[in-house]
Amino acid sequence: MKRRDFIKKAAGGALLAAGATTAAPAIAARKRFNWKLVTTWPPNFPIFQEGVEKFAKDIEEMSDRRLRISVYAGGELVPALQTFDAVSQGTVQMGHGAAYYWSGKVPAAQFFTAVPFGMNAQGMNAWLYKGGGLQLWREIYKPFNLVPFPMGNTGVQMGGWFRKEINSIADLKGLKMRIPGLGGKVMAKAGVNPVLLPGGEIYTALERGTIDATEWVGPYHDQRLGLHRAAKNYYYPGWHEPGPVLELSVNSKAWAELPKEYQLMIETAAAAANIWMHAEFEAKNMTALQELKQNHKVNILEFPADVIKQLRHLTQETLEQEAAKDLSFRQVYQAYKSFSQSNDAWSDISDAAYAKALKL
Amino acid sequence: MKRRDFIKKAAGGALLAAGATTAAPAIAARKRFNWKLVTTWPPNFPIFQEGVEKFAKDIEEMSDRRLRISVYAGGELVPALQTFDAVSQGTVQMGHGAAYYWSGKVPAAQFFTAVPFGMNAQGMNAWLYKGGGLQLWREIYKPFNLVPFPMGNTGVQMGGWFRKEINSIADLKGLKMRIPGLGGKVMAKAGVNPVLLPGGEIYTALERGTIDATEWVGPYHDQRLGLHRAAKNYYYPGWHEPGPVLELSVNSKAWAELPKEYQLMIETAAAAANIWMHAEFEAKNMTALQELKQNHKVNILEFPADVIKQLRHLTQETLEQEAAKDLSFRQVYQAYKSFSQSNDAWSDISDAAYAKALKL
Repeated sequence: MKRRDFIKKAAGGALLAAGATTAAPAIAARKRFNWKLVTTWPPNFPIFQEGVEKFAKDIEEMSDRRLRISVYAGGELVPALQTFDAVSQGTVQMGHGAAYYWSGKVPAAQFFTAVPFGMNAQGMNAWLYKGGGLQLWREIYKPFNLVPFPMGNTGVQMGGWFRKEINSIADLKGLKMRIPGLGGKVMAKAGVNPVLLPGGEIYTALERGTIDATEWVGPYHDQRLGLHRAAKNYYYPGWHEPGPVLELSVNSKAWAELPKEYQLMIETAAAAANIWMHAEFEAKNMTALQELKQNHKVNILEFPADVIKQLRHLTQETLEQEAAKDLSFRQVYQAYKSFSQSNDAWSDISDAAYAKALKL
Repeated sequence: MKRRDFIKKAAGGALLAAGATTAAPAIAARKRFNWKLVTTWPPNFPIFQEGVEKFAKDIEEMSDRRLRISVYAGGELVPALQTFDAVSQGTVQMGHGAAYYWSGKVPAAQFFTAVPFGMNAQGMNAWLYKGGGLQLWREIYKPFNLVPFPMGNTGVQMGGWFRKEINSIADLKGLKMRIPGLGGKVMAKAGVNPVLLPGGEIYTALERGTIDATEWVGPYHDQRLGLHRAAKNYYYPGWHEPGPVLELSVNSKAWAELPKEYQLMIETAAAAANIWMHAEFEAKNMTALQELKQNHKVNILEFPADVIKQLRHLTQETLEQEAAKDLSFRQVYQAYKSFSQSNDAWSDISDAAYAKALKL
């Protein structure tokens, strides 16, 4: 074994010095790439932006500094919500955000982040990686020259902060609430006035009463934003975002030019970041929840059963209406629904049954 | 940027040809490694062995074939349950299995696989990656010259196949059941006679009535083993293994000799395999469950609430007794318990509350 190794190394060395063509794969691999990655997150945004920076650093290190990825937060190179266009047009090679941000252009993209009353992180991973979901996502993004990857998951979010208590669906009527996406559409049906606000403006709006309620992420990020100082009623569960998937997208031309081993580094590092970021959300949310309860005397309240039932009914209505408007939405909805029904049936006797057993 | 790239490349080329010492990191990275990885799984064992083979192939490809890992199934190079010793002694560089297989040598290792009525896959990932669990695991394995990594998770398992129905805890008394680990100890307290049998012998033993019951993995693997032809009552949930973590272990001396970028490839590829393998278990189990129900008319039965309550009580007793016997077990038990209490409190308002909302 050792002798063979020595011969290989010696031969490799000679070929390199001579620049022989048979060394082409090794030379291709040594080609250097300087890529840019733009995100939709604020600078230093914990877990989100930090997770992306670790991902870039890992790849730089694994590639022996031959694939360098410079990471820019939202607004540093392009405005936060223009990362889709910037990567699509090839201005930069990579972007990180969440697919539902692009629902104006690609309504079906919402299924690749989160659907109200839909699958949690575990179900989404099963669907995307092993149930055909990722292939579908790639087909949907193909016309935009984008190759998407799941990279990060917040876990089940919180239902949001409310200045008043919500005791019935009627209490939602007329509320101004910061809630984006399909969740916002469902809330609109319940009489809420859904408002779109970037993270940086939420606290002031809630504190001054410009809005009556807001959802954000979960205990850890919500506490950092100080939302517990602007409202005392913190509702659960986050029915509207039960396990949002974060997305990495790569410009398809840049992707095609990468040697296979660098493609594999990106794919592998994105999957590793997916599980690491989710683990970090869970670990930090559980600590922050304790702090919110014990140090800040927040009221942690469950949405009443009747409110949940009605929101679920309105979600059904919303999904059917969106499906009627857009062919791709309809197609992805079908695939999503079919997988998620099997997933629910399995969860009933695995995760859900186990959760029940812990409480008996 | 382009001009700077050109200069870098030209300089790099010159250094390589001259063999200058400043190129040392690049030369170290090009050093070749031929490693061996032995597993505890049968050859071609789906997901388990296949997942390990993909992991090895990914690393070989990412390293441009400079870190080669030859994978051997259980018994091909060393007996399945000697992988711990083989990696510990440096006979091979890597092993894959499950930490609780080594509970005879390292009682505390069980916490790094699964604990009856303990954390599920999501909780285990949060604890291991971001809650101090992995550091603890590494400390526990240090005296054995092993560096462990989580790599794969089966998700919540099934409770097992029983020839008779289980309507009360009394029905367990006197049963011969194939069930290993802490689950087996708990079952023994309930009057079961726990039996250890390798996978290859389970079907025949159950079919001939040598054993009355067995647990194995989940619908997908259980169906492949044909267990539905040997018993008709398939119980859930798998209270004894709610999200077993599979382990990669690396000999610590071999690890220390690896250049940093190869270490990072192993760490990253193991995390990616962790999420991919779990996703595959979920996706395949949900399909197999449907087949077992529809094509094979298996009785899918829930353990009665009273049986679960008593098993949970006996689990508590078992854990306290084991903790009294071994210092490391006691230490890891404390850390595990403390994290899992926070995890439960958070799950109550996130995952568990969400699962409930889906059923209202």
